[in-house]
Amino acid sequence: MEEDTRNIKALKMLAIDAISNANSGHPGIVLSVAPMLYTLATRHLVVDPTSPKWINRDRLVLSAGHGSALLYSHLHLSGFDVSINDLKSFRKMGSRTPGHPEFGVTPGVDATTGPLGQGLGMAVGMAVAQKRLEKQFGKLMDHNTFAIVGDGDLMEGISHEAAEFAGINNLNKLVVLYDSNEVSLDGPTSRSFKTNERQRFASYGFDTFLVEDGDDIDAIDAAITKAKASPNPAFIEIQTIIGEGAPNEGTNKVHGAPLNDEALSVLEDNLDWHLAPFEIPAEIEASFHEKVGDRGIAAHQAWEKEFDASSDKAEILRDFGSNVKVDESKLETFKVGTAAGGRNIGHTALNDLAKQVPNLIGGAADLASSTKTEITDGGTFSADNPLGKNIPFGVHEFGMSTIMNGIALHGGLKVFGSTFAVFSDYMKAAIRLSALQKLPVIYIFTHDSIAVGQDGSTHQPIEQLAGLQSIPNLNVVRPGSPNEIVSAWKMAVESVDRPTVMFLSRQDIVELPSDNSATLLEKRGGYVASFEKGKLSAILMATGTELALTLEAQKELEAQNIFTRVVSMPDQAKFMQQDVLYRESVLPNNQRRRIAVEMGSSLGWANIVGLDGKIIGIDSFGKSGASDVVIENFDFTVDDVVAEVKNLLFKMEKVG
Amino acid sequence: MEEDTRNIKALKMLAIDAISNANSGHPGIVLSVAPMLYTLATRHLVVDPTSPKWINRDRLVLSAGHGSALLYSHLHLSGFDVSINDLKSFRKMGSRTPGHPEFGVTPGVDATTGPLGQGLGMAVGMAVAQKRLEKQFGKLMDHNTFAIVGDGDLMEGISHEAAEFAGINNLNKLVVLYDSNEVSLDGPTSRSFKTNERQRFASYGFDTFLVEDGDDIDAIDAAITKAKASPNPAFIEIQTIIGEGAPNEGTNKVHGAPLNDEALSVLEDNLDWHLAPFEIPAEIEASFHEKVGDRGIAAHQAWEKEFDASSDKAEILRDFGSNVKVDESKLETFKVGTAAGGRNIGHTALNDLAKQVPNLIGGAADLASSTKTEITDGGTFSADNPLGKNIPFGVHEFGMSTIMNGIALHGGLKVFGSTFAVFSDYMKAAIRLSALQKLPVIYIFTHDSIAVGQDGSTHQPIEQLAGLQSIPNLNVVRPGSPNEIVSAWKMAVESVDRPTVMFLSRQDIVELPSDNSATLLEKRGGYVASFEKGKLSAILMATGTELALTLEAQKELEAQNIFTRVVSMPDQAKFMQQDVLYRESVLPNNQRRRIAVEMGSSLGWANIVGLDGKIIGIDSFGKSGASDVVIENFDFTVDDVVAEVKNLLFKMEKVG
Repeated sequence: MEEDTRNIKALKMLAIDAISNANSGHPGIVLSVAPMLYTLATRHLVVDPTSPKWINRDRLVLSAGHGSALLYSHLHLSGFDVSINDLKSFRKMGSRTPGHPEFGVTPGVDATTGPLGQGLGMAVGMAVAQKRLEKQFGKLMDHNTFAIVGDGDLMEGISHEAAEFAGINNLNKLVVLYDSNEVSLDGPTSRSFKTNERQRFASYGFDTFLVEDGDDIDAIDAAITKAKASPNPAFIEIQTIIGEGAPNEGTNKVHGAPLNDEALSVLEDNLDWHLAPFEIPAEIEASFHEKVGDRGIAAHQAWEKEFDASSDKAEILRDFGSNVKVDESKLETFKVGTAAGGRNIGHTALNDLAKQVPNLIGGAADLASSTKTEITDGGTFSADNPLGKNIPFGVHEFGMSTIMNGIALHGGLKVFGSTFAVFSDYMKAAIRLSALQKLPVIYIFTHDSIAVGQDGSTHQPIEQLAGLQSIPNLNVVRPGSPNEIVSAWKMAVESVDRPTVMFLSRQDIVELPSDNSATLLEKRGGYVASFEKGKLSAILMATGTELALTLEAQKELEAQNIFTRVVSMPDQAKFMQQDVLYRESVLPNNQRRRIAVEMGSSLGWANIVGLDGKIIGIDSFGKSGASDVVIENFDFTVDDVVAEVKNLLFKMEKVG
Repeated sequence: MEEDTRNIKALKMLAIDAISNANSGHPGIVLSVAPMLYTLATRHLVVDPTSPKWINRDRLVLSAGHGSALLYSHLHLSGFDVSINDLKSFRKMGSRTPGHPEFGVTPGVDATTGPLGQGLGMAVGMAVAQKRLEKQFGKLMDHNTFAIVGDGDLMEGISHEAAEFAGINNLNKLVVLYDSNEVSLDGPTSRSFKTNERQRFASYGFDTFLVEDGDDIDAIDAAITKAKASPNPAFIEIQTIIGEGAPNEGTNKVHGAPLNDEALSVLEDNLDWHLAPFEIPAEIEASFHEKVGDRGIAAHQAWEKEFDASSDKAEILRDFGSNVKVDESKLETFKVGTAAGGRNIGHTALNDLAKQVPNLIGGAADLASSTKTEITDGGTFSADNPLGKNIPFGVHEFGMSTIMNGIALHGGLKVFGSTFAVFSDYMKAAIRLSALQKLPVIYIFTHDSIAVGQDGSTHQPIEQLAGLQSIPNLNVVRPGSPNEIVSAWKMAVESVDRPTVMFLSRQDIVELPSDNSATLLEKRGGYVASFEKGKLSAILMATGTELALTLEAQKELEAQNIFTRVVSMPDQAKFMQQDVLYRESVLPNNQRRRIAVEMGSSLGWANIVGLDGKIIGIDSFGKSGASDVVIENFDFTVDDVVAEVKNLLFKMEKVG
């Protein structure tokens, strides 16, 4: 017990030292959460500091990511490759100890957290993956998932979506530790909620526990032990004092600013800790190594033996490897003349891929029957059927996205999720975290334009495509033909470190004759779909169903002796990354008669069209009406495109 | 009772007829919700169909907006200006009966709903406004707010944020009716949640009620009566059968597709209703008019008498009027040389305006101490102090935004909300509804770039500004100087039908000498901040703190005999709407040496910079480090800008 007390002090002070040295960070959570993290790490968490990516490790998500210093302190003391120098570089440029935990940057960090609430969602996703894989591979995949959440996490709506999903799917190996300190950034939480959180989590189907004294590590230990054994997901409320031991303990003043010298000295006196900054006695490090590292290493070694002996080893290695290679010859492609809903073509492509990629799973936010993303005969994921490949995410768009991120972070599975394009808005913050964490998850957004029709402006995406294109490290694809859809799906499944967003139509998309293969999408992002049949007057560019529209307009113009080129540009960002020679072959720099046609915000096209061309887009909200009437009303007809081309040519002629 | 039964049948069938005639819509909810809507409308709801905007009417939000046909049926029968012809035009282009209810389009529709969950949030906002205004004006503002929600609404995370806020603030005049039919689009809700919703809402501090039979209008009536009288916000679970009376009742098959002829005939037999489509016996209309209209009209007339006699009348009329005119001379402006955090300047501007605009209220999503949006001496809004002008929204970004929309929809108040720019992601779906509903709410997003520094990539906005610029009907402003901040705030407060998003820095923003007044922002969106002092070589454009950077670069270039113009472009969209002469005076069309400088996604600049210029932006995620180190790392220094200008000039020289 004395050893534990001493160790907890070290855990706290090392984090406080890092914050003081950086002169930036959050001491409050360090001092309230240290005892629970210590108890978890030394008595329960099964991790191997020498092999932080061991696939059957327990997952630990600090959803309250502003507690990063504490997490780094734990990682250092427990023997992960996080040195004292790394702690001294806390929050400094280029360090492996950034201001909030970042997956891929720091060994032992299982998720990027900081945007509140999403850590809980990702932990739920990890528990989904674990549940499925344990059903598949037995005790080789029997680990727990722990999430540490704060008041801020639980105020976020995502906590509801994630917890509701965990409840119905009975993710029994999920344990949530709630740092209940009744203070958030602006003051006591009594200003912003009076929610009985245990009652709330019970309403979802969690088993709930209360630890009244956050310093009582035996009580925390007992609660975690019960939580792990409970047949349901577990929620442990641990009542703590924010910034405990510092002068402003129990108030928001200790939340987000480093302690000044005087406050630091008070804390050191209260903890009876009088060592130089970053000084940790060797016996403390040894104690941590024994309690966390040695236990974890032994567990890992035992696991490796079983793994080596397992007949599942090859399959597990394959599934946890990142390289999916698709046999293209086994994917159905579509003949010229094919006309079908983009979502239906997507369904065919998905199912062809699912046959080749057995660990491909996914679902919809209660719109599977509309987005057509069911894996036929894949079964439905549920508490009773964790092997079901179709996940009924519920009307939880944001939850779905965080769960997808969690599944991808866990490893072993390839995941997709779908909803209507307009509802991607609900998921924006999580799509950003997919991209930031380099997770190759797949978003299928159908009903991708005003062609949605009757449901009206609330259901018609306008700005969503452009908005998503602004996110770094994200593939955004709006395929222009059935075969482009197949290519886009293949590209998405093979992606290693970039998430993919795919926009698909509800209405028919048509396979028209092309001068180039649609598979160029994968390599080039954009290509010439139809060359000019005479002296080039203008270049038309389009995505989605508007590609067919421009091809028809090209023909009509041809009949009038105006020769145009049609460029299919399903993945703008990829096209822009091509070498200048290729880009020049598609869009000659001196050809400024450029017309883009897309039923959405013009914002995303100016970088290709320039100041002298014309963007036929939509910069107002949509309208409720029959699909074809709405499309006509917004001037997306062959006649309109032809007229715009001629207008532009006339204008440019005049300019000279 | 017989009369009620007959009326309910009419309410149902008129909606079903509209759906059948449109061959599009959602019959399921019509048949499950009709009895509760009828009970509410005929026995409780106080509205005046002849004066649908009466400011003390009860507010009714159909959060489950796909039930629009039912709402329109109710509006028609109750005597609102929604004709049978309007119902026949359901979901047709240009009608006042769009696919989902749209505020401003249909008399009697209090909110645009359809994107699930947000209706509940807006109802909470309306109840906030009501609570404040009742405290201020007594029984002149004593109405109730009713929300009808479905399973889909309650699965959304926003339901948590909105309800949690309603609970702590004890919005006792809010009554939520829950259509508990256990079915959502993809199937039984048992696939996606097992939440005990009454237990959940009790955890927030709601009084909860259960009606086991959704056809039992006396039980519904009794529950609403109790709910209205209860001292807390109220949640009534009403158990219903989706599509009751139709062949597929109780299943998702009856949710979202019109009934075919056979199904329609079964329903008609079950209801014993055999009239021609859209035929409603006169006595039924008369009965509705009496039960809803006459009651409401009488209440309105009585209210008008009290209103006329009230000493508050002038103030109420002023506050409910939409024209706020600010006396500019009373706003503090800043001298050249002023350097302060953008958020701090914003604080000054807000407080100056608050003195002139007494009904200006708002708050932050638990970041008021960082965003600096407190109204000094304004008090804190709470259950005990509804007059408090500072609303502690909690860590509920999305909730805040829907509540802002609800406050604006209610009328009588001008509202703002703030958080960090990067967390605007959480609110995207609601910002869209601000714009779609033309609500002049004000979003203050601080910490507006990588200059956030230590908190790292999760807290540094990159793509947020460009993404928001893609939303139609939204003012997006990133002021470039202290005085531009004042102008932007003034513009935001005076806006009548457009919401405003303002990006403010944490770091210092500097007032530098300018050739034009910063107030040009309001009129023109962009202007020449500093003209070239010799032959024009290039035009530099910037927003935010980067304006000062470009002005310094201009000077440095001048010293090298390279003369440039600096354009401040805080509101791109407004600039692009200016007449061609003005735009030409700022950015001559033939001057293509254009360089934009902004610490964010380049996506939003191409429409101004074109193919030949240079955008100095950031198209990757940020980094954790000291603010100045991060800024330097991303090449936003005077030297970098100077070098880029010279590079461009050299390149263009070569091209010729």
